[in-house]
Amino acid sequence: MATLLDGRRLAAEIERRLSAVISEGLPEAGRAPGLAVLRVGDDPASGVYVANKEKACGRIGISSHGGHLAADTPAEEVLAVIRRLNADPTVDGILLQLPLPEGLAEEPLLAAIDPDKDADGLHTLNLGRLLKGEPGPRSCTPAGVMALLRSADVPISGTQAVVVGRSILVGKPMALMLQAADATVTVAHSRTHHLSEVTRQADLLVVAAGRPQLIGAVHVKPGAVVVDVGIHRLDGKLCGDVDYETVEPLAAAITPVPGGVGPMTVAMLLVNTVVAWCHRHGLEHDLGDLLS
Amino acid sequence: MATLLDGRRLAAEIERRLSAVISEGLPEAGRAPGLAVLRVGDDPASGVYVANKEKACGRIGISSHGGHLAADTPAEEVLAVIRRLNADPTVDGILLQLPLPEGLAEEPLLAAIDPDKDADGLHTLNLGRLLKGEPGPRSCTPAGVMALLRSADVPISGTQAVVVGRSILVGKPMALMLQAADATVTVAHSRTHHLSEVTRQADLLVVAAGRPQLIGAVHVKPGAVVVDVGIHRLDGKLCGDVDYETVEPLAAAITPVPGGVGPMTVAMLLVNTVVAWCHRHGLEHDLGDLLS
Repeated sequence: MATLLDGRRLAAEIERRLSAVISEGLPEAGRAPGLAVLRVGDDPASGVYVANKEKACGRIGISSHGGHLAADTPAEEVLAVIRRLNADPTVDGILLQLPLPEGLAEEPLLAAIDPDKDADGLHTLNLGRLLKGEPGPRSCTPAGVMALLRSADVPISGTQAVVVGRSILVGKPMALMLQAADATVTVAHSRTHHLSEVTRQADLLVVAAGRPQLIGAVHVKPGAVVVDVGIHRLDGKLCGDVDYETVEPLAAAITPVPGGVGPMTVAMLLVNTVVAWCHRHGLEHDLGDLLS
Repeated sequence: MATLLDGRRLAAEIERRLSAVISEGLPEAGRAPGLAVLRVGDDPASGVYVANKEKACGRIGISSHGGHLAADTPAEEVLAVIRRLNADPTVDGILLQLPLPEGLAEEPLLAAIDPDKDADGLHTLNLGRLLKGEPGPRSCTPAGVMALLRSADVPISGTQAVVVGRSILVGKPMALMLQAADATVTVAHSRTHHLSEVTRQADLLVVAAGRPQLIGAVHVKPGAVVVDVGIHRLDGKLCGDVDYETVEPLAAAITPVPGGVGPMTVAMLLVNTVVAWCHRHGLEHDLGDLLS
């Protein structure tokens, strides 16, 4: 039986730690940390995600500065809102919920967010900081995976890690974080030949391919640690990029879907926000282990 | 006999192309491209490198804005020079020659260079742009390797590539460029176990470990393409990170040291400068194949 890498439990523990940091810092800061989740249009999935993030903020004492703009808001107006949030001294983190309505280009809007308020850790400058090993907000999903691995004392240094997927959101920053932790990392993707031969070399396999149940028993070395970043609805049930039923018996440890990586992504968004608040007010914190 | 990946010849060819782009654009731009190579202190190797770069500029019609500051120049003063170069409309590229004298921190000075004038392609924002696949100046050494591979029609897409070394200067951007060209890339480094097992999987092996003759025949799959980024003086002779004598007979293609990657690094510095000049003046160019 594989050890379950329980993201829900770890996320709850991180929320408790963040709560404590906030309570301790409040007197000196004189205000709670603030996260602005900016939503444009009415993508229904986004509605659920934004509500989840705002609920999480509420649980630990982060003020949510919600903003919901109509789908036909011109780019110039969205930009103006972002600039106002950049300048607002009560806002520590800004998140532009994707996808945007058709006709709104992501890149210039994301680039307009103050890199030090980039709660998602996806600003070009912050990806450069990650590459260089400089401090800065970190991409939430891969940082959440690192926290999950560390919390379970999964060995990383000197191991062979394979990341399946090379997205900006997950695959590329994930590879850099594992590499910084001294793993020998291979990034596989849709153009990789003989995928199962590559993935079977992994002591640590992180799958962020965005394809339901792409990875089965044939892809996994017995005793590997398997992290599944995917989430899909298939025949009315949630599943990941990994075929859990066949892979779980082989793996030393595995993330469930749901309840694995997903809750960690939200937790790391809160971490980025609270750490930015600490910086702004010169407050010490003990969250260093979460900043990959 | 391995095909020789001749960087000297390709660099000369690129210089001819750049010369042509400059001659063609001069009437409209009204001025030559300008590169400022800023040197602080008297590191003797740096003296040679800077002279080489300035000579290359001279050959193709780039104005060199040299600057040589004393080793005890305070950081504030170096910063002021960088800011002046940022603001100077006749300067398209700025390069701060490393290493700096002890006591001068690299990072804040490098960060002060206008990212669009970053001739070395090593600004944090430009490494982020590379990661995201956005346009911008590219790190010279890995971009030079890509140009060398492409000029010899070395297949990249779908191959297994291994990069040995994870430096900011070479290893990390090299991995991203190979990945963008659809290779399945593994980054090996000093903490990698069983290095030869990892490198023997490579169809394409790029070595940037900074250790003389680290890679021998035992590390190389017969028929692999081998790129050696290292350069060292050993017993009075120049050598690379690869033991050329034993590896060359095995390889399908290989870079010599010297005359392989080295000249390409300088050529890509010129490319970054000329492309920035074209952008500044709205000039078209045919250098797209060199912008990995």
